[in-house]
Amino acid sequence: MANQQDVIIKMVLDAWTTHVNSADKLFSALTDEQLQQQVSPNRNRGIYLLGHLTSVHDRMLPLLDFGDQRYPELNDVFLRKPDKSALEVPPTNDLRRYWKEVNEILGQHCMRLQPPGWFEKHTAVSEDDFKKEPHRNKLNVILNRTNHLASHLGQLLFLKNSD
Amino acid sequence: MANQQDVIIKMVLDAWTTHVNSADKLFSALTDEQLQQQVSPNRNRGIYLLGHLTSVHDRMLPLLDFGDQRYPELNDVFLRKPDKSALEVPPTNDLRRYWKEVNEILGQHCMRLQPPGWFEKHTAVSEDDFKKEPHRNKLNVILNRTNHLASHLGQLLFLKNSD
Repeated sequence: MANQQDVIIKMVLDAWTTHVNSADKLFSALTDEQLQQQVSPNRNRGIYLLGHLTSVHDRMLPLLDFGDQRYPELNDVFLRKPDKSALEVPPTNDLRRYWKEVNEILGQHCMRLQPPGWFEKHTAVSEDDFKKEPHRNKLNVILNRTNHLASHLGQLLFLKNSD
Repeated sequence: MANQQDVIIKMVLDAWTTHVNSADKLFSALTDEQLQQQVSPNRNRGIYLLGHLTSVHDRMLPLLDFGDQRYPELNDVFLRKPDKSALEVPPTNDLRRYWKEVNEILGQHCMRLQPPGWFEKHTAVSEDDFKKEPHRNKLNVILNRTNHLASHLGQLLFLKNSD
């Protein structure tokens, strides 16, 4: 009989890793030209979603107390502003590299975090609020960001050639 | 200090409920005509995804040992066959009703299941395999189906009028 805490951490991290790997595989398969396409008419371009997901994952580093954000300069372009605003998007190759780097750093920290640490508060909730809402823990950040990633991954699939 | 088991169950069920409610709100807001549209050129129609999600959620009833599937006749149309195959799609109003009914029944069972029950095996895994893989429990079904729903919900958003 495995420890229930270990089981639940495995469930959440497995789902996260599966989705990060799927997105990684998809981004690698898409050409720079495909990433310039909109996922659907009048919707975000692939390149915007690549930057958006990179920025959201990058912000998980401070949120999980894993260290500083690596690329805070992406926040304006990919979080605060919609696609095709006046802001300049970094070169595609740079974004591809940031995406891989950020997820790799996150993955390393996740592997190292001891089980009880997952049930500690994330950094955006106060001690007082956390006492009342103990579900606002680090594992919940992973769980919710997995859903966020799944949602955009469903959209990004449209950039692949349809049969 | 809340019980860790209760906390994790709340995290997973909250994410599930949030996504079911978002999808429900979206389906209610979309007209029958909008549901006939494809979410992106040459991709599934809204009506197909409504039936698909209903069927997947309906199959969670036996998978979680909550009872029989209500609409097994949907499996062929929305799980085994792609959209726009020769099979006839049920009337939109019926599908809207099935969607609501299935999620309501699921929700009632979820509320009634006692915490330890969530860590019992789901019905598609054998006792022997479950001993080796205790993460294949009922809570994991909810976690994974939330990601599945999030993925299609991201696509269905494209049926709304873009600004």
